[in-house]
Amino acid sequence: MLFEKIKSDILAHNSYIVGAGAEAAVIDPRRDCLVYAAVARREGMKITQIFETHKNEDYVIGSRELARPTGAEILHGAREEFGFGTGVREGETFSIGSLEIEVLETPGHTVESISLLLRDRSVSDDPLMVFSGDALFAGDVGRTDLAGENRRREASEMLHASLHQKILPLPDGTIVCPAHGAGSVCGGKISDREYTTIGYEKTTNELLALSKKEFVERKVNERLYEPPYFTVMRRLNKEGPPLIQNLPHLRPYSARDIRSLTDRGAQIVDIRSPTGFAGGHIPRTLNIWREGLPLYLGYFVNYEDPIVLVDDFNLDLDHVVRHFVRLGYDNIAGYLAGGFAAWFKQGETVERSGIWSPPDLAENLDDPSIYILDVRKIDHREEEGHIAGSHHIYVGHLEDHLDEIPEDKRIVVHCDVGYKGSIAASILRKHGFGNVTNLLGGTTGWKAANYPLVKEEEEKRALSAPSPM
Amino acid sequence: MLFEKIKSDILAHNSYIVGAGAEAAVIDPRRDCLVYAAVARREGMKITQIFETHKNEDYVIGSRELARPTGAEILHGAREEFGFGTGVREGETFSIGSLEIEVLETPGHTVESISLLLRDRSVSDDPLMVFSGDALFAGDVGRTDLAGENRRREASEMLHASLHQKILPLPDGTIVCPAHGAGSVCGGKISDREYTTIGYEKTTNELLALSKKEFVERKVNERLYEPPYFTVMRRLNKEGPPLIQNLPHLRPYSARDIRSLTDRGAQIVDIRSPTGFAGGHIPRTLNIWREGLPLYLGYFVNYEDPIVLVDDFNLDLDHVVRHFVRLGYDNIAGYLAGGFAAWFKQGETVERSGIWSPPDLAENLDDPSIYILDVRKIDHREEEGHIAGSHHIYVGHLEDHLDEIPEDKRIVVHCDVGYKGSIAASILRKHGFGNVTNLLGGTTGWKAANYPLVKEEEEKRALSAPSPM
Amino acid sequence: MLFEKIKSDILAHNSYIVGAGAEAAVIDPRRDCLVYAAVARREGMKITQIFETHKNEDYVIGSRELARPTGAEILHGAREEFGFGTGVREGETFSIGSLEIEVLETPGHTVESISLLLRDRSVSDDPLMVFSGDALFAGDVGRTDLAGENRRREASEMLHASLHQKILPLPDGTIVCPAHGAGSVCGGKISDREYTTIGYEKTTNELLALSKKEFVERKVNERLYEPPYFTVMRRLNKEGPPLIQNLPHLRPYSARDIRSLTDRGAQIVDIRSPTGFAGGHIPRTLNIWREGLPLYLGYFVNYEDPIVLVDDFNLDLDHVVRHFVRLGYDNIAGYLAGGFAAWFKQGETVERSGIWSPPDLAENLDDPSIYILDVRKIDHREEEGHIAGSHHIYVGHLEDHLDEIPEDKRIVVHCDVGYKGSIAASILRKHGFGNVTNLLGGTTGWKAANYPLVKEEEEKRALSAPSPM
Amino acid sequence: MLFEKIKSDILAHNSYIVGAGAEAAVIDPRRDCLVYAAVARREGMKITQIFETHKNEDYVIGSRELARPTGAEILHGAREEFGFGTGVREGETFSIGSLEIEVLETPGHTVESISLLLRDRSVSDDPLMVFSGDALFAGDVGRTDLAGENRRREASEMLHASLHQKILPLPDGTIVCPAHGAGSVCGGKISDREYTTIGYEKTTNELLALSKKEFVERKVNERLYEPPYFTVMRRLNKEGPPLIQNLPHLRPYSARDIRSLTDRGAQIVDIRSPTGFAGGHIPRTLNIWREGLPLYLGYFVNYEDPIVLVDDFNLDLDHVVRHFVRLGYDNIAGYLAGGFAAWFKQGETVERSGIWSPPDLAENLDDPSIYILDVRKIDHREEEGHIAGSHHIYVGHLEDHLDEIPEDKRIVVHCDVGYKGSIAASILRKHGFGNVTNLLGGTTGWKAANYPLVKEEEEKRALSAPSPM
Repeated sequence: MLFEKIKSDILAHNSYIVGAGAEAAVIDPRRDCLVYAAVARREGMKITQIFETHKNEDYVIGSRELARPTGAEILHGAREEFGFGTGVREGETFSIGSLEIEVLETPGHTVESISLLLRDRSVSDDPLMVFSGDALFAGDVGRTDLAGENRRREASEMLHASLHQKILPLPDGTIVCPAHGAGSVCGGKISDREYTTIGYEKTTNELLALSKKEFVERKVNERLYEPPYFTVMRRLNKEGPPLIQNLPHLRPYSARDIRSLTDRGAQIVDIRSPTGFAGGHIPRTLNIWREGLPLYLGYFVNYEDPIVLVDDFNLDLDHVVRHFVRLGYDNIAGYLAGGFAAWFKQGETVERSGIWSPPDLAENLDDPSIYILDVRKIDHREEEGHIAGSHHIYVGHLEDHLDEIPEDKRIVVHCDVGYKGSIAASILRKHGFGNVTNLLGGTTGWKAANYPLVKEEEEKRALSAPSPM
Repeated sequence: MLFEKIKSDILAHNSYIVGAGAEAAVIDPRRDCLVYAAVARREGMKITQIFETHKNEDYVIGSRELARPTGAEILHGAREEFGFGTGVREGETFSIGSLEIEVLETPGHTVESISLLLRDRSVSDDPLMVFSGDALFAGDVGRTDLAGENRRREASEMLHASLHQKILPLPDGTIVCPAHGAGSVCGGKISDREYTTIGYEKTTNELLALSKKEFVERKVNERLYEPPYFTVMRRLNKEGPPLIQNLPHLRPYSARDIRSLTDRGAQIVDIRSPTGFAGGHIPRTLNIWREGLPLYLGYFVNYEDPIVLVDDFNLDLDHVVRHFVRLGYDNIAGYLAGGFAAWFKQGETVERSGIWSPPDLAENLDDPSIYILDVRKIDHREEEGHIAGSHHIYVGHLEDHLDEIPEDKRIVVHCDVGYKGSIAASILRKHGFGNVTNLLGGTTGWKAANYPLVKEEEEKRALSAPSPM
Repeated sequence: MLFEKIKSDILAHNSYIVGAGAEAAVIDPRRDCLVYAAVARREGMKITQIFETHKNEDYVIGSRELARPTGAEILHGAREEFGFGTGVREGETFSIGSLEIEVLETPGHTVESISLLLRDRSVSDDPLMVFSGDALFAGDVGRTDLAGENRRREASEMLHASLHQKILPLPDGTIVCPAHGAGSVCGGKISDREYTTIGYEKTTNELLALSKKEFVERKVNERLYEPPYFTVMRRLNKEGPPLIQNLPHLRPYSARDIRSLTDRGAQIVDIRSPTGFAGGHIPRTLNIWREGLPLYLGYFVNYEDPIVLVDDFNLDLDHVVRHFVRLGYDNIAGYLAGGFAAWFKQGETVERSGIWSPPDLAENLDDPSIYILDVRKIDHREEEGHIAGSHHIYVGHLEDHLDEIPEDKRIVVHCDVGYKGSIAASILRKHGFGNVTNLLGGTTGWKAANYPLVKEEEEKRALSAPSPM
Repeated sequence: MLFEKIKSDILAHNSYIVGAGAEAAVIDPRRDCLVYAAVARREGMKITQIFETHKNEDYVIGSRELARPTGAEILHGAREEFGFGTGVREGETFSIGSLEIEVLETPGHTVESISLLLRDRSVSDDPLMVFSGDALFAGDVGRTDLAGENRRREASEMLHASLHQKILPLPDGTIVCPAHGAGSVCGGKISDREYTTIGYEKTTNELLALSKKEFVERKVNERLYEPPYFTVMRRLNKEGPPLIQNLPHLRPYSARDIRSLTDRGAQIVDIRSPTGFAGGHIPRTLNIWREGLPLYLGYFVNYEDPIVLVDDFNLDLDHVVRHFVRLGYDNIAGYLAGGFAAWFKQGETVERSGIWSPPDLAENLDDPSIYILDVRKIDHREEEGHIAGSHHIYVGHLEDHLDEIPEDKRIVVHCDVGYKGSIAASILRKHGFGNVTNLLGGTTGWKAANYPLVKEEEEKRALSAPSPM
C-alpha cells in the first residue's frame, strides 16, 4: 500500500496519495502537481482518482491540473455545483486496487465538504484512515466563519453534527489525515502533530469535549482573520482554476527595468530578512521575507499588476515561485537580476528604516515622541500580553487603518519575532511614514531579555489608579 | 513537531526523526545517514539523541556514523553489552523540546529490544506514538528464531509478554511506528500499511488474537529464512560498525580489468533484468537485478573479495551502492565502464541462458528431459501451490543443494515472477550446469496464462491413484 | 564574459550562450530551452538576442520557445522567409554588453545560412570566435545534399565560397564553434574535438585543402543518409515550431493498456539493450536502445500515433523524453508502468530473438541456411570491410528492402557493435521474419575475436577465382 | 575526445579533464574532486593520470584526493621535491587513448611550473591545446612575486623565457587553457574570456608585446596582494594535503552555543549581504558575503579555531562549505541553526552599523567629524580615482593598520560596490570602533550618481593651490 503525505510548506496544506496494486488516488492535490505523478511513477502506479474534500479558500486546487497529464477522474462533494469534476454523495465507494475509499458528507466548514474513509479490504472492514479535509484537524476543527457572519451559527451546528455523528464514531485507532497542519490560515490553533488518531483527538482536542451549545458558542465567537485573497480562491476553485502546465519562468529585470515597471504599477516584493530590508531597500517596496510569502501575500498583493522579486543573492527562486503559483498569482513576472546590489550599484535611491533591539525600546519606553504599534493577531496580544503603551493593528489590516497612526512620531512597530514587523514597516514606509523602526526579536526577544508584557486589564487598572503622591 | 519516516527502499527498514523546538532525535538510523542531518537542518534543529531499538540483524546500524557529525548521544537497551553508546532501562525518559520519549523494555525478538513511547507533554500525558522496533509490525510481530532453535520458545514467550503487557495496553489511538515494513526479511508477513495504530492492530493482527500458548506454538513453528549475512550484522552492530564517512566511490573497470579481477577472486554482480542476463552475460557471474540486491546479496556475496557491478547503461549506480553499504559490503569496488557492451565489443566470451514463457513450459511439461526447479520460499510454494512435477530448493539455499539437481537435464528454474529465477539460473550456470532456462513470469505469469498450480497433497494423491485405463 | 556550450547529447547539437555585463545572447538554442535561462540567471544576465545560424533539419529549433519566457529578439539569415523572427544581412552587428556579434552570410549548407563573428570590443577588433553553424565543423564541412540532388553542385560551390572567402580568412587564432559535433547526422565525419580554431582546421581539415573543383566533386559524390524526419523538421523550423512550454508528462500505462493501445496503432518503443530485447520482448515492438533514440527514431517512428516506451526499470525517463521532444515527437505519450516485468507477469505473450557471439557465427559461416545481413552505413562497410558472404542494407532503409531478404532462412543481422543490429532484428521480427539473430559485438567484436573482414574487391576476386580442386 | 573545463567559482580556478577511448586525464584538479570522477563515469572512461602544472598557492590541490578513489598516477614538474607523485621533465609524453600530452617546462611563476601540450595523434602532429598553468593567462601572465622580493627579477626573466621560447612559438591556432580566469588572486588583470588562443594572445595581450627588459621591469614593479593563507597552501601542496574523503558535515549550533563557542575563540563568519549585516549582527563577527569567501577568507580567518557561519535562511550551505574546503579550512564547524533570527529571538545583543547612500556622503563630505576610508586595491584607487579627502588602506591589510584610524570620528568606509566595505566595517566594529558606516554602492554607485572621483595628483594640486581670497 502506498501512502504519502505531500505538504506544501508554510501554507501548511496537506495532500495525500494512496495506492495499491497498480492504481493510486490523490486527495486535495496542490497546483504544482507533478510531485504526485512522480510518486506514482516510482511505484509503478497510475493515478485514477482525484478527490477534493472541499472547495478550498487558501490555495488554488490542483485537481484539474493533475487530471490533464494523468487522465484521472475528479470527485468532489455534490452539495455544491462545481465547474468541473463529478459530485459524490454519502456512502459512495471507490476502489483503488484492494483499497476502498468511502465518502462521508461532513458539511460545516463548507456545505459541500466531504471526508474520506480509507479501508484496506484485503485486511479488514475497519477503517484504517480518515481524510478529514477541513472538518477535523489535529487539536482543532475547521473554520465556520467563511460563509459569512449570518451563516456562522448554522455552519457551526453542521460541523458539530459532522464531527459527532460521522467522524468521532470511527474506531479510536483510525488515523486522521486532515487537509491542514499547524500554521495554516485555515485554523486558529491547529496543533503541529504530523499524524493523529480519532482516539488521540477524542482525549486531547478540547473542542471535541464541548457540548453542542458550548461548541457553537465558541465557534461563533472565534476571531480569525480572513485574507482578502480567499475570495479569489473560492471563485477559481469553484469554476476550475486556469491550467498552468508548469511553473512560470521568472524573467530577469535590470535596475533600470524595475524603475520603469514600478512606474507602470508593478508590485515589487522584497523577500529579504528584516535586517536586510532595514539596512537598505528600493523605495516603496513591500517586504515579505521568503518564508512568509504564503501567509501574507494574500493581504497585500493584487492579481493584476506584474510582481517582481528582490533578493540579495537570488537563491532558490524556483521554490519561491511556487508560493505565488499556489495562491494563484500567475502575474508573478520576474526578479531583479544581480540582486539588490544591482540596484545600489546604479546609484539608485536607497531607503533605510530603523531597527531597534529590546534594550533600545526599553530605554525609550517613556519617550512621548514614539508610537509603539503591535501588529500581531489580536488573540496573540491578548493571551501573551503586550508592551505597555503599545497600540494594536493587525498587520493584515494595516493599510486600512493608516489614519490611526500619527505621522509626526517615530513609529516603533513590532510583532512576536520581527518578520511581520518588517512587513508592517515596509507598508508604513510605502505610505510615507518617515520615521519607522522595527523591533528585532519582537515580543519573543523582549521577554527573553526580561522585559515585561502586560495584559489589557492590568494596564487599564494601572492607568486608572490614583497616581502615587 | 517534526516527524518523518525515512525508509530504506527494498530493505523495508524504517527509521524516524522526531523533534520539537530546536532539538531532534533519530530512531534506528541507517548507515548512509546524512539524510537525517539534512532534515534537521531544514527544520533548524539539532540532533541530540539517537536511539537503537535493538541490535539489528539485517543492516548495519547508523548510530555511530550519525553521532560523528552531530555529536548526538547514542542510546540502546541495557540488557546486552554494546561496544558503544549508553544502555537505557524501563521507564527512563528523554526530552526533545516539548516531546518526551519513554523507554519500554520489550524483549523477545532480541533480549535487549526496547520500544519507545512518544508523548507531547505540551498537549497531553497520553502517548501519541510508539516506536515498536521489531516487537510489533503492521500485521505481524518480530521473529523469535534468531537467537537459535533452543532459545526460540523462551524468546516467543518473552515477546508475548512484551506485546501484551507493554504495548497492547497503550490506548487504541496510539500510532505504531515499527522498524520494518512489508518485504523485510525481518518478518514473515509484515503488511504493507505505512502507518497503523494499536487499535487497528488489535482488531486486525491475527497474531495478537492468539492465546499465549497458541502464539508460542505459532512462533516456534514459523519457517523463516535467515540469510547468512545476519551473522556479520550481529557482530558489527554489537561492536559498533566501521565508520564510512560517506558513500564509497565506485571505480570504473575495463573489460580487460574484469578478466584479471575475476582471476583474483573478484565477485562480479550483474544487476540487469532476467532477459538482459539470459540474452548474454559474462561467464560465471551472479545475476541479482538491481532492486533485489538488499534481499539476496547476503546469501551469495562475501565480505572479502572486491565486488564489481555490471549493468547495461550504468544508470543511478549511486543509489545501487547504498544497498551494499547498508549491508556492510564495504568491499564494493567498482563497475564495468561502458556497460555490458564494453564486454562484448572486446570479443570476450558471452554466455547465454534460456528464457521460456509459460506456454513453452506447458508444452514441455511431460518431457522427461526437463527438471523443473521451484526456488520460491517454501511457504509461498505450499500456500499458492506449485507447477506439477516441480522440485523445490529455496533460491537462498541453492548453492548448498546443487548435488540434488541432475546435470544432464534442461533445468527449468522458476520463482513467482522471474527475477529470483534468474538469480538461480545464474548460480546454476556458474556451477557448470549447461542447460538452464528461466521461466519468465514465474507462477504469476503461469496462473495469468491460465495454467494450473497444484498443492502437495493433491499431487501425492494424483501420483498414488491408480492410473486410468 | 560568459561563454558556455550547451550540448544536446547524442544528437551532437551544439548551442552557445555568450554574454557580458548584464546581457546575453543564445546561438542555435534547442527546444528544451530552460537551460539557457538558468545559465543567464546564475550570471545575473538577461537574454536579449537569439540567433539561428540556419533552418536546421535534424532537430526542432528552440528560438521561439526561448523567446517566450525571455522576451528576446530572434534573428536569422534573411535569404529565406521564416514564419517568425527578423532576417539579418552580411555585416550587421549586435552588441551584447561589450561584446559584438557580426553577421557573415555563409550559404552552402542552406541558402540562408549565416555565421557569427564574436569580438570583445573592450579588448581588440580581432575576432575571438566564429559560430560557424553548419558551414565549418571540426574536421568536416556542412552537407550540401539536403536541398535536393539537382541543387547539390550549386550548394557545394556556394559552401566553398563561404568557407574560403568568409571563414578561412579569419585569423588562425579564432576559435571555431560549430553547430554540431561528432556523431551528428548533419555531417559525414565530424571530428570529436570539442573546440577547434581556424588555424588548426586549416592545417588538419582535409576538405579545406582541396581545390574548388576537388571540393565540389567530393561533396557532390558524398554518400550521406537522410532520415525521413528531416522533412518535418524543415517545415516546422521554417514556419516556427509549436510551443511546448515544458517537457511533456509521460503517462503510465498498464500491460493491458498497451495491448489496446497497440490495437489502435500506438508505437511501442523498447529502449532496452540488445540482450534485454533478445531475451524477451512484447511482440511487434521496435527496439532502439535509449542512447540511440536521437539518431534512429526519425527513420521508424511517425508523428501521429502515440508513442509508448518500454524499459526494464524505467530509470531516467525524464531525460529520455527530451530526445523525443528535440525531434518534434510531441506524440510521446507514456511508458509501461512497472517495466517489462509488468508485461510478462500478466502472462502476456513474450517473443524472443536470437543472440550470437562471434564464435557462433564463425562456426556457421558456411551454413547455407543462414543469411548474414550487414546494416551498417555503406561507407563504414566499404572502409572497414565486411564479413564474407554478408549482404548489405542500411538499418534506416531496412523497411523499404524487406523483399530482398529470404523468409525461410535464419537471418543473422549485424552492425558494428550490436545496437543497430538489434534495431534491425526488431524490425525483421515485426515484419514476420521468424528466425532472426543479432550478432553481439558486431564487426568490432568479430575483429577483436580475430575473425577476418574482407573488402568488396577481394570477395569478388575470391568468388570469381576458379575453385581449387 | 572528451574535453571539459571544471571551474571553481569565484576562486576562478580552472581545471580540465580530457580523454579519448576509455582513458582520461585531469589537469589541476580541485580538492572537492568527485566531479571529475562523475564526468569520467558519464563518458565510460577511467582517469589514469593527474597532472599538476605547479604547486598552487591559492587553493588546496586535489591530485592526492582524486588519486585515492581512481588509482590514477600523479605527475608534476620535477624541478622541486614534492611529498607525493612523480616528477616529469621537458619532452616527456603521456598517452590517453589517441591523445598525447607532452610536458613543457615553463618556470617563472614557480620554478617547477610546467605547461602541457595536447595533441590528437589520430588527427595531426600539431598541438590542439596548451594547458598553460600559471604561465600564460588570457590577457595576463603569471605572478613572479611569490618566491620573495629578492627572487622576483630572476623569476620574471625565467617567465619571459618560458613564454617566448616555449609557449608563443606554438601555432596561432593552439587553444590556450590557463589555470585561472578573471578575478583570481593569482593574476593582476586576467581577462574574462573563457577560451583563448596563441594567436589571439599574441595580438591582444600587451605583456607579450613588451621587450624582455620592459617585461621584467613591469613584473618587478607590479603591485599585487598576497593573502596570508598562501603560505599554508604552499606548504600543504608541497607535502601533500590531508585527505578529506568528502565534504565536511556542518553542525547546527544554537544561539546559546554560539555564545559559548565565541568565548572559546570560535570564528563567527556572517555570510549575509552588507545591508543585512548593517541592519543587525552578532557582536564582533566578521562579515564576508557568501560570494566573497574564496577571495577574502584567507586574510582574516585562521586555520585552528572552529568556524561557524551565520546566514539569514541557511540556503545552499553545501556550496558555501566548498569555499572553505578549497582553501584548506578544515576547521569549518557549523552554522547558526534557524539563521540570524535564532539570535535575536533569544533577546541576545544585536549590533548595528551604518549604511549611507552616495547622497548621504556627498552632503557630509566637508564634515570634519567623518573619516573616509577607501579599502579598494591601491591600483584600483589610482586608476579610477578616489573620493576627495578619503584615506586608503586595503581591506586585506586593515587589521595591521588600525592605529592609523581615528577612534573618535565616524568612519565612512567604502570600496567599489559595498561588499568589501562591509568586510572592513565588520573588522572596525570588531576592534571597537563605535561609529562605522559603509557606503552602499561604493565608488560605482558614487559615479553612477554623478559625484566626482579625483586622482591623487589633482588632489595634491588642489590642496597646494593658494586658497582664493
